[in-house]
Amino acid sequence: MADKKKAPSASTESSADTEELLALRDQIDALDEQIQQLISDRAACAQRVAEVKTRARQKGDEPPLFYRPEREAQVLQRVMARHTGPLGQEDMARLFREIMSACLALENTLQVAYLGPEGTFTQQAVIKHFGQWVETRPLIAIDEVFRDVEAGAVNYGVVPVENSTEGVVNHTLDTFLNSNLKICGEVELRIHQHLMIGPNTRREAISRIYSHQQSLAQCRKWLDAHLPHVERVPVSSNADAARRVNTEWNAAAIAGSMAAELYDLEIISPKIEDQPDNSTRFLIIGRESVPRSGQDKTSIIVSMRNGPGVLFSLLEPFNRHGIDMTRLETRPAPSGTWAYVFFIDFKGHMDDDNVQQALRDVEERAVEVKRLGSYPMAVL
Amino acid sequence: MADKKKAPSASTESSADTEELLALRDQIDALDEQIQQLISDRAACAQRVAEVKTRARQKGDEPPLFYRPEREAQVLQRVMARHTGPLGQEDMARLFREIMSACLALENTLQVAYLGPEGTFTQQAVIKHFGQWVETRPLIAIDEVFRDVEAGAVNYGVVPVENSTEGVVNHTLDTFLNSNLKICGEVELRIHQHLMIGPNTRREAISRIYSHQQSLAQCRKWLDAHLPHVERVPVSSNADAARRVNTEWNAAAIAGSMAAELYDLEIISPKIEDQPDNSTRFLIIGRESVPRSGQDKTSIIVSMRNGPGVLFSLLEPFNRHGIDMTRLETRPAPSGTWAYVFFIDFKGHMDDDNVQQALRDVEERAVEVKRLGSYPMAVL
Repeated sequence: MADKKKAPSASTESSADTEELLALRDQIDALDEQIQQLISDRAACAQRVAEVKTRARQKGDEPPLFYRPEREAQVLQRVMARHTGPLGQEDMARLFREIMSACLALENTLQVAYLGPEGTFTQQAVIKHFGQWVETRPLIAIDEVFRDVEAGAVNYGVVPVENSTEGVVNHTLDTFLNSNLKICGEVELRIHQHLMIGPNTRREAISRIYSHQQSLAQCRKWLDAHLPHVERVPVSSNADAARRVNTEWNAAAIAGSMAAELYDLEIISPKIEDQPDNSTRFLIIGRESVPRSGQDKTSIIVSMRNGPGVLFSLLEPFNRHGIDMTRLETRPAPSGTWAYVFFIDFKGHMDDDNVQQALRDVEERAVEVKRLGSYPMAVL
Repeated sequence: MADKKKAPSASTESSADTEELLALRDQIDALDEQIQQLISDRAACAQRVAEVKTRARQKGDEPPLFYRPEREAQVLQRVMARHTGPLGQEDMARLFREIMSACLALENTLQVAYLGPEGTFTQQAVIKHFGQWVETRPLIAIDEVFRDVEAGAVNYGVVPVENSTEGVVNHTLDTFLNSNLKICGEVELRIHQHLMIGPNTRREAISRIYSHQQSLAQCRKWLDAHLPHVERVPVSSNADAARRVNTEWNAAAIAGSMAAELYDLEIISPKIEDQPDNSTRFLIIGRESVPRSGQDKTSIIVSMRNGPGVLFSLLEPFNRHGIDMTRLETRPAPSGTWAYVFFIDFKGHMDDDNVQQALRDVEERAVEVKRLGSYPMAVL
């Protein structure tokens, strides 16, 4: 019988290597002990930070903000900047995300509401942004996420805002028009398209592929090469496509892995998108403005009167002040008046001098400028 | 304008505290730098472990096992044993789970198949056991998970085996009868029951609550106190209950949060179970036996001929050798003969002397004993 304490693994490896392996494992164990001690020290520091903040509240100052998005972003930016491997930069940052999440939960477990239906993608975004130490609340509509954050029932909300498969989530943009919430952060998830079939699908008899128009377009080359004679049927969403496949024995769907899971489909060809950089963007919404992190984005809504050159007139100040615009969406004004509403994202923080100047210039030309918030750019 | 580099947060805190906060943050930053260095050292060690194992393979030894369940369990057991706070023991172990997961993925990203339909619970179990650095493959049936692991298409599979709400997952047990796979680990998830309604439910008009019989039983006290006059309708599963609520304006369901998410329901009363220790157990299945971790469980299947005293005759050897049995399930033998099939879990490892003696004794009395595997007890 082997010694009960030591090396039960010896039986499956050659003995010379086992010596070396045991030495390496001892080294790892020693490192683990140090890592654990340091994480504990870090947690103790985080506790003292919370105490200082709580004391400040008792003295009659503003309520303490235990979670500081700009501070977390700075920590992650530094982690990535100084990282030299062997783990990937993002992997290391994800570990620190979890360490911060655990430390924060010592004082205050964040409550985060998110849009449930699109489901597990948005939840994935929550975990990616806040780490695992949060309490999540799935809600059935974007308005409800806004309402719960406004009412203080949760600390933050997470809503989708751009989906490279299904376009801009207009409902989110429209909800911002009537809300005083701030954007506190953004999350990006890479998303893949898969070909999937149902339990009753006869694989050799597939004559029809359902998917959203944009997904079909994104997988066009793959479809031309592998299933050139199969009919492509655009439907309202990829979830809808997945749902249909369950009842049709000669159909397949193109959708994400969550849809396969939700509708019990089997992925027969994974990752068939022509361009591999497909992603979805989510926004974190909260009640407080976020100070500068050093690598920030700002989102605003601008209402402009209809007229010639309106778009140029809007863009010119940004260009003049050296501001990099990252997104511009045009939406019909809700009032039905002869006006445009633009949703604009640009790099920089509202506390930056050039941003303040540009915003003043835009305000002079616009009917209204609504500042949705400055927030750290997605680090991961 | 504030200095761009430093303390943009000063505006929201009193300045005396800010000094103290800045000092604490500097301390945290210094700790983070050390933690990062040590995690990198650990990853480098893990790489060397992988190199040693790969070299062993090239010399004609057995293929290398990069993932060692018993080793991971030992690391987590030690982390928990020496932990003194302020983070919770489990929180610290979860952080180490992620660190190990990231280090392992450097060499070899584990492929894990799991049972998709019950869905996100089993996926949660995957992440809880393997950490986030795995590739997961949702499948639509327990047999398929077994098949993919047997075929080597994935490294491991995760299947539910006990659900304190819906009982034993018999299908999993039956599949073991015809499989040569080994149990390599177990995972437990705590599960809560919630009262939920659909988008069309009229809250004041609820006259019917759907749920699985066992969930209704588990929430009996709460229902007696809060909804004594509402009819309780048992259905085949909690997912089925959730599905029904979507189409009935006067019905609510009791189910887990995943069901609320899957079927777009709103949780109106969370955590209504009478006993808060509701949990679901999953098994990790793989192709290799797992050496002793020091805190192990063993699962076997025993076929016994029908006759008086058969159960006592089976249990007696375990008792005599001081072995603690943790579970016993009786199933009809698949052949339809006059025999019982027992699924038995007990504490200890097949390499332990007393376990070997007990198994020899049981083998003398049984028609057949199938050893499903010894594996580390769930640490988290």
